[in-house]
Amino acid sequence: MEFTAWFGRLNINEQGEVTDCQPFSKDPDELAERLLAFQESGQNVRLQGIDLRQTASDCGFVELDEEYDVLLRDVCIRAAKSRISSNDTDDVRIIQAVQALDDIDRNVNELSERLLEWYGAYFPELELTGEALASFVTSFGSRANVPAGHPLHEKASGSMGAEISFADEELLRTFASNLCSLYDTRRHIESYIVTGMGSLAPNLSDIAGALLGARLISMAGSLQKLASFPSSTVQVIGAHRALFKHLRSNTPSPKHGIIYNNIIIKNAPWWQRGKLARAFASKISLAARTDLYSGKKNPSIRESMEKKLNAIRAANPSPPKRESKPTGKPGPKGRGRNRKGGRR
Amino acid sequence: MEFTAWFGRLNINEQGEVTDCQPFSKDPDELAERLLAFQESGQNVRLQGIDLRQTASDCGFVELDEEYDVLLRDVCIRAAKSRISSNDTDDVRIIQAVQALDDIDRNVNELSERLLEWYGAYFPELELTGEALASFVTSFGSRANVPAGHPLHEKASGSMGAEISFADEELLRTFASNLCSLYDTRRHIESYIVTGMGSLAPNLSDIAGALLGARLISMAGSLQKLASFPSSTVQVIGAHRALFKHLRSNTPSPKHGIIYNNIIIKNAPWWQRGKLARAFASKISLAARTDLYSGKKNPSIRESMEKKLNAIRAANPSPPKRESKPTGKPGPKGRGRNRKGGRR
Repeated sequence: MEFTAWFGRLNINEQGEVTDCQPFSKDPDELAERLLAFQESGQNVRLQGIDLRQTASDCGFVELDEEYDVLLRDVCIRAAKSRISSNDTDDVRIIQAVQALDDIDRNVNELSERLLEWYGAYFPELELTGEALASFVTSFGSRANVPAGHPLHEKASGSMGAEISFADEELLRTFASNLCSLYDTRRHIESYIVTGMGSLAPNLSDIAGALLGARLISMAGSLQKLASFPSSTVQVIGAHRALFKHLRSNTPSPKHGIIYNNIIIKNAPWWQRGKLARAFASKISLAARTDLYSGKKNPSIRESMEKKLNAIRAANPSPPKRESKPTGKPGPKGRGRNRKGGRR
Repeated sequence: MEFTAWFGRLNINEQGEVTDCQPFSKDPDELAERLLAFQESGQNVRLQGIDLRQTASDCGFVELDEEYDVLLRDVCIRAAKSRISSNDTDDVRIIQAVQALDDIDRNVNELSERLLEWYGAYFPELELTGEALASFVTSFGSRANVPAGHPLHEKASGSMGAEISFADEELLRTFASNLCSLYDTRRHIESYIVTGMGSLAPNLSDIAGALLGARLISMAGSLQKLASFPSSTVQVIGAHRALFKHLRSNTPSPKHGIIYNNIIIKNAPWWQRGKLARAFASKISLAARTDLYSGKKNPSIRESMEKKLNAIRAANPSPPKRESKPTGKPGPKGRGRNRKGGRR
């Protein structure tokens, strides 16, 4: 039988003895590549009982034991490095971008509240917040610089705010311009995510929107993981607290996780949300799987989703009559207990 | 007796009747100024029992009741506005700057950790963090751009990191350059605080350092409040948790709050810290009071502090012998209980 060791092909007879050995060339890069390809092919051949070191020197691959050690070490390090550098896939990049977006959002909010409070002492009548405030402060600084034609000129000239000194104005302008560029970066990252999702997961972006799709990939860990989830899991990704509370005790199960952020769910009346979320999540799963295995855009997913959603909307035009509270009834309680028992 | 109402001077006889009235001019700004000056002078004259509205129309200040109402409203609003605009004192500005500094510190840390993780995929061997990392990414972007003479060139060319695409490089550079300008703003704010403290509280800056002084003012609320604190309070500002735990239960009292950040305390051996903190806090109190009431720099505070600190250092050259644990002894326990009772 023929086997492959890291340094060459071996022929082993039924007694476990090496009868023939064809060593590869001694180039470490080539050997590392072979090693990786061999590991990825999944052929887990067991070479136990054979002294590889002895075989390698017998067949003339190396002359000294030290040479074997040094070469093996070198080949393994090269293989590990090349695996690290190939680890940077499209979805890893998108996940990083989504996390950076969240970080920037949080920080930008905090800094713009600080700006609001700080600049409020000088122009309390200004009703701008967030980016509008930052760009106002960046372009004008002191409220005395608002030109006569500007819509805020009247407010600025009659403001009860304090007079701003030159040093304060400079400082606030620097601070505000930082904030403006953070907002710009935020937009830059957002468009990066949209572009990246268009090539990584065109169907998912089409169904769920690029940002929601990216966030789903980020929470799942990778596109592959997202595609492997059942759609009931996709439906509640991001609702961990509610889900585990439901599993632990007698609370209703969550109807939707972060997919709530899509207008399909968000703008739906409450009695349709659960049904719509189920249909929506199943189409997200389908889209993620299509993206993973074909990578081509398939417009029929969107069409069938629209049909399904419209059918649900048509079937539930008005709110159902609220029944008396189910809490305390034996049915749901028993179910809750069973589930709890089954889980633990 | 002569009294001042908001619209003029009144002479009132002992029966509480108005005998004479000299109205002020009807300019609302002038009236508002008078009102403020009058309120600040602290003359709280009680004019109860006199119908001011009637008196004002009797002495010819206004002709109609409506005019009285409109004018009074106008004057009050102007007075309130002018009080708001005069609310922006030097210490309020410094407090805002200190808080902005803290915000920026927190956000910059968070964003630079994100950059470290993100850029780590492309150049894992780079051992830079914080500002050094941000300026490296801003100036080079891809590790392929590191020039041959650069100390990191060798690491960059042999890196196991992934290849960076153009879009990613652009994005990371923008992100990193934002971070760099946040670091710049941080320095800007810091120098603003140092300058501002030099004029607001020269003695406090001299004794405690500008940043620590500013932080003390920020935590106290204003320079006036800091000056009114006893020095034992100054000693533990910022150690609220430890202080209240001490008051609640039998833990030792905190020796120092944020004044720990000064090298006088920080670099001292542990057995001198409590004594040094007490002396240091008393000199901070003294400096804050001198700043509030004279505003001039007094070098003798620093001299006497140095003398005091050196005396403490000389008197305690070596660590005291640790006694057996005092916990459980009746003495301190009883004291703790008394104190607790006294507080509540």
